[in-house]
Amino acid sequence: MIDSFVRKDSGIPGLDELLEGGFPYPSVILVAGSAGTGKTTFAQRFLFAGAEKGQQGLYFTTLSEPTQWMLRFATRFSFVNRDYFGDQIVYVDLGTAIRDAAPAEILSAIDDKIAEVMPERIVIDPITVIDVPLGESYRSFLFDLCNRLKNWKAVTLLTGEVPPQELYPPEVAYSVDGIVLLHNSDEGDGRRKYLEVLKMRGTNHVTGKHSIEITSEEGIVVLKSQF
Amino acid sequence: MIDSFVRKDSGIPGLDELLEGGFPYPSVILVAGSAGTGKTTFAQRFLFAGAEKGQQGLYFTTLSEPTQWMLRFATRFSFVNRDYFGDQIVYVDLGTAIRDAAPAEILSAIDDKIAEVMPERIVIDPITVIDVPLGESYRSFLFDLCNRLKNWKAVTLLTGEVPPQELYPPEVAYSVDGIVLLHNSDEGDGRRKYLEVLKMRGTNHVTGKHSIEITSEEGIVVLKSQF
Amino acid sequence: MIDSFVRKDSGIPGLDELLEGGFPYPSVILVAGSAGTGKTTFAQRFLFAGAEKGQQGLYFTTLSEPTQWMLRFATRFSFVNRDYFGDQIVYVDLGTAIRDAAPAEILSAIDDKIAEVMPERIVIDPITVIDVPLGESYRSFLFDLCNRLKNWKAVTLLTGEVPPQELYPPEVAYSVDGIVLLHNSDEGDGRRKYLEVLKMRGTNHVTGKHSIEITSEEGIVVLKSQF
Amino acid sequence: MIDSFVRKDSGIPGLDELLEGGFPYPSVILVAGSAGTGKTTFAQRFLFAGAEKGQQGLYFTTLSEPTQWMLRFATRFSFVNRDYFGDQIVYVDLGTAIRDAAPAEILSAIDDKIAEVMPERIVIDPITVIDVPLGESYRSFLFDLCNRLKNWKAVTLLTGEVPPQELYPPEVAYSVDGIVLLHNSDEGDGRRKYLEVLKMRGTNHVTGKHSIEITSEEGIVVLKSQF
Amino acid sequence: MIDSFVRKDSGIPGLDELLEGGFPYPSVILVAGSAGTGKTTFAQRFLFAGAEKGQQGLYFTTLSEPTQWMLRFATRFSFVNRDYFGDQIVYVDLGTAIRDAAPAEILSAIDDKIAEVMPERIVIDPITVIDVPLGESYRSFLFDLCNRLKNWKAVTLLTGEVPPQELYPPEVAYSVDGIVLLHNSDEGDGRRKYLEVLKMRGTNHVTGKHSIEITSEEGIVVLKSQF
Amino acid sequence: MIDSFVRKDSGIPGLDELLEGGFPYPSVILVAGSAGTGKTTFAQRFLFAGAEKGQQGLYFTTLSEPTQWMLRFATRFSFVNRDYFGDQIVYVDLGTAIRDAAPAEILSAIDDKIAEVMPERIVIDPITVIDVPLGESYRSFLFDLCNRLKNWKAVTLLTGEVPPQELYPPEVAYSVDGIVLLHNSDEGDGRRKYLEVLKMRGTNHVTGKHSIEITSEEGIVVLKSQF
Repeated sequence: MIDSFVRKDSGIPGLDELLEGGFPYPSVILVAGSAGTGKTTFAQRFLFAGAEKGQQGLYFTTLSEPTQWMLRFATRFSFVNRDYFGDQIVYVDLGTAIRDAAPAEILSAIDDKIAEVMPERIVIDPITVIDVPLGESYRSFLFDLCNRLKNWKAVTLLTGEVPPQELYPPEVAYSVDGIVLLHNSDEGDGRRKYLEVLKMRGTNHVTGKHSIEITSEEGIVVLKSQF
Repeated sequence: MIDSFVRKDSGIPGLDELLEGGFPYPSVILVAGSAGTGKTTFAQRFLFAGAEKGQQGLYFTTLSEPTQWMLRFATRFSFVNRDYFGDQIVYVDLGTAIRDAAPAEILSAIDDKIAEVMPERIVIDPITVIDVPLGESYRSFLFDLCNRLKNWKAVTLLTGEVPPQELYPPEVAYSVDGIVLLHNSDEGDGRRKYLEVLKMRGTNHVTGKHSIEITSEEGIVVLKSQF
Repeated sequence: MIDSFVRKDSGIPGLDELLEGGFPYPSVILVAGSAGTGKTTFAQRFLFAGAEKGQQGLYFTTLSEPTQWMLRFATRFSFVNRDYFGDQIVYVDLGTAIRDAAPAEILSAIDDKIAEVMPERIVIDPITVIDVPLGESYRSFLFDLCNRLKNWKAVTLLTGEVPPQELYPPEVAYSVDGIVLLHNSDEGDGRRKYLEVLKMRGTNHVTGKHSIEITSEEGIVVLKSQF
Repeated sequence: MIDSFVRKDSGIPGLDELLEGGFPYPSVILVAGSAGTGKTTFAQRFLFAGAEKGQQGLYFTTLSEPTQWMLRFATRFSFVNRDYFGDQIVYVDLGTAIRDAAPAEILSAIDDKIAEVMPERIVIDPITVIDVPLGESYRSFLFDLCNRLKNWKAVTLLTGEVPPQELYPPEVAYSVDGIVLLHNSDEGDGRRKYLEVLKMRGTNHVTGKHSIEITSEEGIVVLKSQF
Repeated sequence: MIDSFVRKDSGIPGLDELLEGGFPYPSVILVAGSAGTGKTTFAQRFLFAGAEKGQQGLYFTTLSEPTQWMLRFATRFSFVNRDYFGDQIVYVDLGTAIRDAAPAEILSAIDDKIAEVMPERIVIDPITVIDVPLGESYRSFLFDLCNRLKNWKAVTLLTGEVPPQELYPPEVAYSVDGIVLLHNSDEGDGRRKYLEVLKMRGTNHVTGKHSIEITSEEGIVVLKSQF
Repeated sequence: MIDSFVRKDSGIPGLDELLEGGFPYPSVILVAGSAGTGKTTFAQRFLFAGAEKGQQGLYFTTLSEPTQWMLRFATRFSFVNRDYFGDQIVYVDLGTAIRDAAPAEILSAIDDKIAEVMPERIVIDPITVIDVPLGESYRSFLFDLCNRLKNWKAVTLLTGEVPPQELYPPEVAYSVDGIVLLHNSDEGDGRRKYLEVLKMRGTNHVTGKHSIEITSEEGIVVLKSQF
């Protein structure tokens, strides 16, 4: 017999109310959107929300970007507490492995790191960049990755960058337990940003687009009035 | 001489009335929709509706997802009676076979399992994920699979995930006896969900989109008023 | 000197009036539409209309579907007289030949069967499924097939399944003598079905979309009032 | 010094008035449209208009269709005088050459036939079917073909079948001297047919879509009132 | 120190006013449009405008079309003075070189001819046909060609034919100094023709679509009132 | 500990106010737009704004265009002070390297030049042309290039030319720290130009499209009133 769901709060004000309290724990969640929609901010807010509660975080970047470079931009947000970095939020560069290693080795590297850190919250940001080095193995890698992640007691956020007009990367959508869309919509009198929970297994989530704001304090805030 | 149709109820309240009583028995039915439209819930409701009547079920997953993981999310729905699982609804992971075996061997594995379990209701969920490992053999595999399934005395539901804006996966549509579409439509003031019976051989089915609700009790409910 | 046209009635009430009496005899006609538009019903109605008049029919299926399976669904329609089957309407499974034989052999198999049965009405249903096994030879096979069929004294209906939004399969359109489209149109308040004669050589056919109904008695009925 | 243009009448009532009297002589003209727009009727009317004036015609079919088959359908039109066929309008099947011969040989076969018949009017119907057997050589074949045809003192009509929604086959458009489009437009209350002269070198042609009718007497008639 | 721009008039009445007096000299300009928009007429008017002022012209055709064939159609326009042809406007057929020579040899042939003729105005018409024989080398050939042309003291017009609905051929757009679009727009009550200067380096050009007329006297005339 | 952001002014009047003062320093910024939207002018204005303040600039062109050719067109703008060229703004032709060298060598050449010049502002214009010579290596080259550039203390602008209707080149978007779009919008009564900051890491940038003007004095000016 399995108890009713444990959930992890997202850290995004207003989002957990759409999700019956947060992301199912464990689960694998896709956060998808085009350039500039706030995917990385979303993922970082999620990790820091955990760190504030003493939950171990693990942040895989696929961009080969130095920690300092990433932190420079992140510190615009007041939720980013640099003291958490390195210890409570372990930052790992997957870029080199992705370029040089075989898919099975990359999966092992990810597994090994998770086993070492034992995080409750994991981010892989962005997952979609992996299609360049992996080529034909990309889709089966995503499939295997999601299955591996389901063996761990953690909520994993995969961020996925899509071209404008695409909603989400279809090649990973069927393997994840939840999909959160970040929209950047051109409405004539300016771009508006929206968040939408498209899918969340085991959750009676609120549907439809919700206006969001990017703020220095919280990163992303879901506004009350639904569009 | 063949008698008039035996039908299997879908388990979805309101759907059987659109289908002259249910799915033709035997038949192969495609349930298609984009991410988050409720395909898996549809398929599970169908299996449990059978189990409640003592009809043997067989649930093939192509996602290599552990039973416990799937059940965790399914138990949100009150129709999911865990006691049925393992015995009245046999759960089989096709993921490993799909990755490592040749198409003919996968077909044999499916056939062997059906012969062993002798189900009246079969689900393969999702069928569309098979295109990754099978590649060029994907379409002929689907063709052969549907023909094999037609040799058994069962209603088989194949779930098919399509990108947003696509109605159904065309490469399997001509081989199935029925197609049920699940729509997730962005209508400005929110997403609405619809169900539509696009094709049902031997059945004078009701056409057009029907509003559906996702509920904790029944999974999916077809609302009376048609859109 | 060739006399004025002999025509074969379609069996579809209301259609022959659009066609100056029926399909030119001999001719090769494409019946195209997406899933669930009634292509198979159209083709079967055509064969039974002939059988009722004592005209020999020949029904090639490319789906490897057993006769009984097909008949089960067909018998929903009261025009389907099972006594005609086997003798006046010969049912041939092309599925095996298509998978294992070279294009030239498939053409010979079709020719041989036609020579044996000497039908006045032929159906190949659906023709579009052949692209899977034939691959690159698909288009030249269609070209050769149509030319072979023109050597016989018969009206041949080729059914062609297209993805939604496509009108007809262009790779066969230029080789046929007539094209009948079956539309399944989403008009907000429900799907409507239409039939349209797009092309009919030697015939001053009525143009435009015509509403059709699927009925248990006749299969397909063209309604009088044009859209 | 070249005199002002000699022109060949099209045979289509109402069209020559849009063309300053007819097609430039010599020239290569593309007649493009989707299935059922009347391309073959256009081309045949053009040949018979010449035959009536004693101008030699040459009709290449790429469809491997027997003369009798084509004539059967053509004789629906009263302009088709079967006596002209064989002598004043030579009918040549290119289908076999296209399948079995190299591009250079096909060009030679066409050239040889033109040299033998010395036509003032040539039709190749349809040109677009050649892409199947020629594959990668298709576009350079079209290029060479048009250049070869420009060496002859004749008006050549190439008919080109395009999928619905495409205006003309772009791979031949830059090599021809004129383009006539045949539209088959779905306007809600029925399909309307239009003819449009998109390009005609050396000619101050009338632009825009013109309604046409298919009639048994003339084949195609351009109606006076412009759309 | 470079003086303020020398410009070459286009020869098109009304166009130079949009261009601060004409095309920058030297420069490479793309004139793009679909079939029948007047690209060749534009290019010829440009050459004859130069010839009238004693400026040497060089006209490369890629169509392998004999001079007489081209002239026949051009002489419809009263600006075409045949006396200029051969001497003040040298006409060169690139067709053979393009088919048989390597890209580097074609570039050398163009360079050699320019060095021999020393033109102030060059036309290559149409440039887009080169993709057929060059295949994969097409884009790098365009890149090299534009760079070679920038070594000469001339205004070069490249005409580019695009399918309907495309604005310009993107594979050459970044290498040219200016882009002039010729639109052939279907506006329900007929096709209208427009000219638009999309890009002109070093020039504060007038933007937006301008109605044009095709006239026998001038070829193309830009009308005053802007759309 | 990293101090709050240093920023580099863009040189574009009105833009820095949208960017909390300018581009983050260091950072890699993509400036994307279709032909004729002002990408090169944007990049040049940025370099000259630095030169005016004594900040070293480095301008990589991928077009193999001679300095004099580029300068000729640039000097239309009064902000272009030719005295800065060669010394304070070093101009480097990458064209030859891109054609002949391996990706790793091109990256080294760029790195070496940056190490030699030690610029605070770098431009690579346009980056999108590199896909021709690099082919399959293009995307991983972009990925590596961006990572290399992040090792330097400079703001780098990459200009990206996209076909009309595309917003930005997706293959580089995830690797850059900021994206500025230049729109060239057809609004019936003429083309309007807009600038939009789609993404700017570490910056609470103003969103939405802003009208811009091309002026001889400043190159590009962002108008106050937002669209």
